[in-house]
Amino acid sequence: MQTLQKTHPKLQELKTLLTEVDDIYSAASLLYWDQATYMPPGGAAARGRQMATLQQIAHTKFSDPTIGQLLSDLLSYEESLPYDSDEASLIRITRRNYDRAVRVPADFMAKMSLHRTASYNAWAIARSENNFAAVQPYLEKTLEICQEYANFFPGYDHIADPLIDGADYGMKATSMRSLFSQLREKLVPIVEAIVSQPVADDTCLRQSFSEAEQLDFSLKLIEQLGFDFNRGRQDKTLHPFMTNFSIGDVRITTRIRENDLNEGLFSTIHEMGHALYEQGINPKYEGTPLAGGTSSGVHESQSRLWENQVGRSRNFWKFFYPQLQEVFPHQLGDVSLETFYRAINKVSRSLIRTDSDEVTYNLHVMIRFDLELELLEGKLAVRDLPEAWNQRYKSDLGVVPKNDSEGVMQDVHWYTGTIGGMFQGYTLGNIMSAQFFAAALKANPEIPTQIEQGNCHTLHNWLKENIYQHGSKYTAAELVERVTGKELSIEPFIQYIQHKFSDFS
Amino acid sequence: MQTLQKTHPKLQELKTLLTEVDDIYSAASLLYWDQATYMPPGGAAARGRQMATLQQIAHTKFSDPTIGQLLSDLLSYEESLPYDSDEASLIRITRRNYDRAVRVPADFMAKMSLHRTASYNAWAIARSENNFAAVQPYLEKTLEICQEYANFFPGYDHIADPLIDGADYGMKATSMRSLFSQLREKLVPIVEAIVSQPVADDTCLRQSFSEAEQLDFSLKLIEQLGFDFNRGRQDKTLHPFMTNFSIGDVRITTRIRENDLNEGLFSTIHEMGHALYEQGINPKYEGTPLAGGTSSGVHESQSRLWENQVGRSRNFWKFFYPQLQEVFPHQLGDVSLETFYRAINKVSRSLIRTDSDEVTYNLHVMIRFDLELELLEGKLAVRDLPEAWNQRYKSDLGVVPKNDSEGVMQDVHWYTGTIGGMFQGYTLGNIMSAQFFAAALKANPEIPTQIEQGNCHTLHNWLKENIYQHGSKYTAAELVERVTGKELSIEPFIQYIQHKFSDFS
Repeated sequence: MQTLQKTHPKLQELKTLLTEVDDIYSAASLLYWDQATYMPPGGAAARGRQMATLQQIAHTKFSDPTIGQLLSDLLSYEESLPYDSDEASLIRITRRNYDRAVRVPADFMAKMSLHRTASYNAWAIARSENNFAAVQPYLEKTLEICQEYANFFPGYDHIADPLIDGADYGMKATSMRSLFSQLREKLVPIVEAIVSQPVADDTCLRQSFSEAEQLDFSLKLIEQLGFDFNRGRQDKTLHPFMTNFSIGDVRITTRIRENDLNEGLFSTIHEMGHALYEQGINPKYEGTPLAGGTSSGVHESQSRLWENQVGRSRNFWKFFYPQLQEVFPHQLGDVSLETFYRAINKVSRSLIRTDSDEVTYNLHVMIRFDLELELLEGKLAVRDLPEAWNQRYKSDLGVVPKNDSEGVMQDVHWYTGTIGGMFQGYTLGNIMSAQFFAAALKANPEIPTQIEQGNCHTLHNWLKENIYQHGSKYTAAELVERVTGKELSIEPFIQYIQHKFSDFS
Repeated sequence: MQTLQKTHPKLQELKTLLTEVDDIYSAASLLYWDQATYMPPGGAAARGRQMATLQQIAHTKFSDPTIGQLLSDLLSYEESLPYDSDEASLIRITRRNYDRAVRVPADFMAKMSLHRTASYNAWAIARSENNFAAVQPYLEKTLEICQEYANFFPGYDHIADPLIDGADYGMKATSMRSLFSQLREKLVPIVEAIVSQPVADDTCLRQSFSEAEQLDFSLKLIEQLGFDFNRGRQDKTLHPFMTNFSIGDVRITTRIRENDLNEGLFSTIHEMGHALYEQGINPKYEGTPLAGGTSSGVHESQSRLWENQVGRSRNFWKFFYPQLQEVFPHQLGDVSLETFYRAINKVSRSLIRTDSDEVTYNLHVMIRFDLELELLEGKLAVRDLPEAWNQRYKSDLGVVPKNDSEGVMQDVHWYTGTIGGMFQGYTLGNIMSAQFFAAALKANPEIPTQIEQGNCHTLHNWLKENIYQHGSKYTAAELVERVTGKELSIEPFIQYIQHKFSDFS
C-alpha cells in the first residue's frame, strides 16, 4: 500500500479478491441498514433470503483455497517486512480471518443468517406481547447453532472461547471472568455508597420534547463534534446501530422518545463515537480487512468515550447546555446546568441495561455474560433462562423485572442469533474508554478546557492519530499497549468513576 | 409452480439457482436506489465498484453452463406443458434470457457497469456547467461499448437491433422506423392544428407550492389510486424512477419543484403506474425471471396510462381537484377546474421531453431514436451530436435550445451508458397505453364514471387481471394480442389524442 514501493504482484492479486469480498459484505450491510430504516413490511421475506445469499457468496469467496494459496505464497514476503507495515499487517490480518473462515462451511453461514432474520422477527413480536414462550424455540435453535459454530474450532478451553475470540481477538472466557471479578469487587462498594445518597432528580429529562427538534439538535451537535456528513448520515430506527459501506459512507441510526431526552441524545453521541472510528480509518485500507474497527471492545471504547467521558461531563454541557436550552426554552429554561448534569448522571439500581448509568452498567453486562456461558455449557436450559435472569437481577441489582419484556427479552443480541461473544465487548469498551481517555489527557492536558469551549478537535485528532487510522492493524491488546504504554487495566475506569461520582455528594 | 402438481426436480433446481441470481440483482438494485436517494457524496467511489461487482457475479452465475444444461434437460418437459402454463413460461423466458446472457462476458458487464457510474457522475457536473465537451469522451466510450455489446449478437439487420430487442423483445430498428413514420404522418397535422389555436394558460401551475404539502398530497393520491404502501414507498431523488427488490418491496421516487405543480404531481402518478404493474405480479413468480414487467414498452404503457389517460383526464380531476384546492386554497381557490384541466394539458412546441405534452411527446422521442441509430451506424460522430440535435429540434419542433443543457444533455439515458434501446419504449408505451385503455373501457364502460367518483378499482383490477399478474410470461406482442384482440396499432392513440384535444377548441 506504500505508494512509492511497487506492490508485490501476489499481494495485488490478493487485494483484488479481498475487495470483491468486501463489496459483497458491504451490499449485505446495506440490505440490513435498509431493512432497519426504510424497508416496507412486505419486503421482509425476500430480504432475509437476500442477506443469506450474499453472506454465503462472500463467505465462499473469502474461504476459497486461492486466497489460502496466496497467503502461503506471501508468507516469506510478509516476514521480510516490518510487523507494523501496512502490507505485513494486511497479510497478517487476512490470514487470521481466513484461518477462522475456512473452518466454517458457507451453507452454515447462510443457515445462520436466515435463522437470525427469523429469530429477530419472532422476538420483535414476542417482546411486544411479553411472550417468552413464543421466542423460546428460536432461542433454543440459536443456542444449538452457536454450539455448532464453536465446535468448528475444536481444542478450546471453554466452548464460548471461539465466539469471544471472533469479536474480541485474544480474549477468553477465563480472562473475561477474571476481569469481571476484579471489576465487581471494586464496583459493588461504589454502587452501595452512591445509592445510599439521595437519588438525583431527573424529571427535567422526562418532559415532552418534539422529535423534530431533538433530531435537529442532535444532528447539529454531532457535526460540531466532528461527524463528517459528507461521508455519513443519520436515520431513525428501532434499535440504534452504526454501519458502513465504505470508509466514505458511515451511517448511524437513532431512536427518539418524546418523553425522554436521554434516549435520543446519548444514543446519537454513542453511535457517533462508533462512526468517528470508522470515518477516521486510513483511506488506503479501503476494501480490505484492515478497514474496520479492530475489535468489539475497542469499538465500544470509542462510543462510550464520546458518550460518557465527553458527553456526560460537566465541561461538555457548560458549552452545549445553553444551546439545548435555546431549543427547549419552555422545558429547560428554568433548569440549572447542575440539575441537568446530575439528571443525565443519575445512578440507580435499574432493570434496563441500555438505560443504566455508567456505574451499574457493567453489572448488567456480567449477568448476561455469566448466563450465556451457562447456556453454552449446557448447564442452563433456555426454558429456565427467564427465572435465572430474574434471580440474578434480584441478587446483583436488587430489582426484579415485572415481566420478561423488561427482563430476559430486553436486549436484541441473543435474539439476532448469537449467544456468546457479544456482551463482553461492552465492559471491555468501558474499561478501555477510561484507559484511552486518561492517555489522551496525559498527552494533552488542555482537552477538558477545550471541551468546555465546545472544541473537541484536539481529542478527535489524538484519537485519529492513535486509534482510528490504524483500523484493524493492531489487536486490542497491541493497541492498548501502544497507546497507553500499559496492559489493559481496570484502574483508570475505577478512578474515573470514583472521581466523577465523589463530586456529587 | 402449480401447488397441486409436484415440480419437476430439475425445474426446482433451476428455480433455486435463479432465485440466487435474483437475490444478487435485487441487492444491486438496492445499491442503486440508495445511491439515488440517501447515499452521502463520500460513498460514490466505492458504490460504483460495488454495483459492478454484483453485476459481474450475477451475470457469471446466470450464464453458468449448469443453467444451460438444466434448460436442455427441461426442453421435453417444457414441450409437454401448455405454452402459457407457469412452468413452461418460466423455462421459456429463462431460456430466452440465458441465450442472450451467454453471449456477453461477465467482465464486459462489470466494465459497462463501472463506466455507467463514471459517465453519470461526469454528466451530472457537465450538465450543471453546460459543458458538453466535459462529457463528450464519456459518451464516446459509451458508444464504443454499445457497439461492442451489439457485436456480441452477430447476424443483426441493424446494429441497434440487439439493443432494442433487449428492452423490447421482438422489435427492430426497421419495425420501429415504420411505426414512427406512420405516427409522424398523423401527428404533425394534429400538432399544427392545435398550436394554431390560442395557447392554454398554465400560470396557475407556476405559483409557489410547498414541497411538504405537495409530497403529502401525492402520497395520499397514490394510496387512493391503489399503491400499496405495505409493499412499497416513495422517496425523493434527482431523476425519478421506479425500482423493486421483490414483489413485496416496490419503490418509487419523485422530484418536487416548488414553482411548478406539474413536475411532482405527474412524475408521481407516472412512477406509480410502473409500480402498480410490479406490485400486481403473481407472487408465485417471486425470485424468477417471470417476476418483472415484460418489456420497456409495456412498462411505459402502464406509467403513461395512469399519468395521461387517467391522471390528465377531466373526469379524474372532477373528483380530485377539490382535494388539491383544499391543500392549496391560496393558489388554486379561485382557479376553475376547466382552467386547471387545460393548464395540465397545455400543448406547445417545447425543448424538454419530460415536460412535453401528450401530443408532441413522441416527436421528441423520434429525434433521439433517429440520432442514436446514426451514432451506432457510425454516420454521426459524438462531437457533432449537439449540432445535429439542435438542427432536428429546429426542423421537427421549430424550437432551438439556447444551450446544450436544455439540448443534448437534458436526458440522463445516453449518459448512464446506453446508446440504443432505451427511447423506443416511450413511444411504444404511449401507443400501447391507448390500445390497452380502449380495451379496458370496452370491457367496462363504467370506468370513466367511476373515475369521476374517485374510484379506480375496476380499472386497476382489469389491469391486474389482464396485464400485471402475468409479469414476463407473455411478450409485448402476445400481450397486446391477448388483451385487445388485435396487433399493436397506433389508431387508438391517434383517436384518443384527436378526441381529447378536439374538445379544447
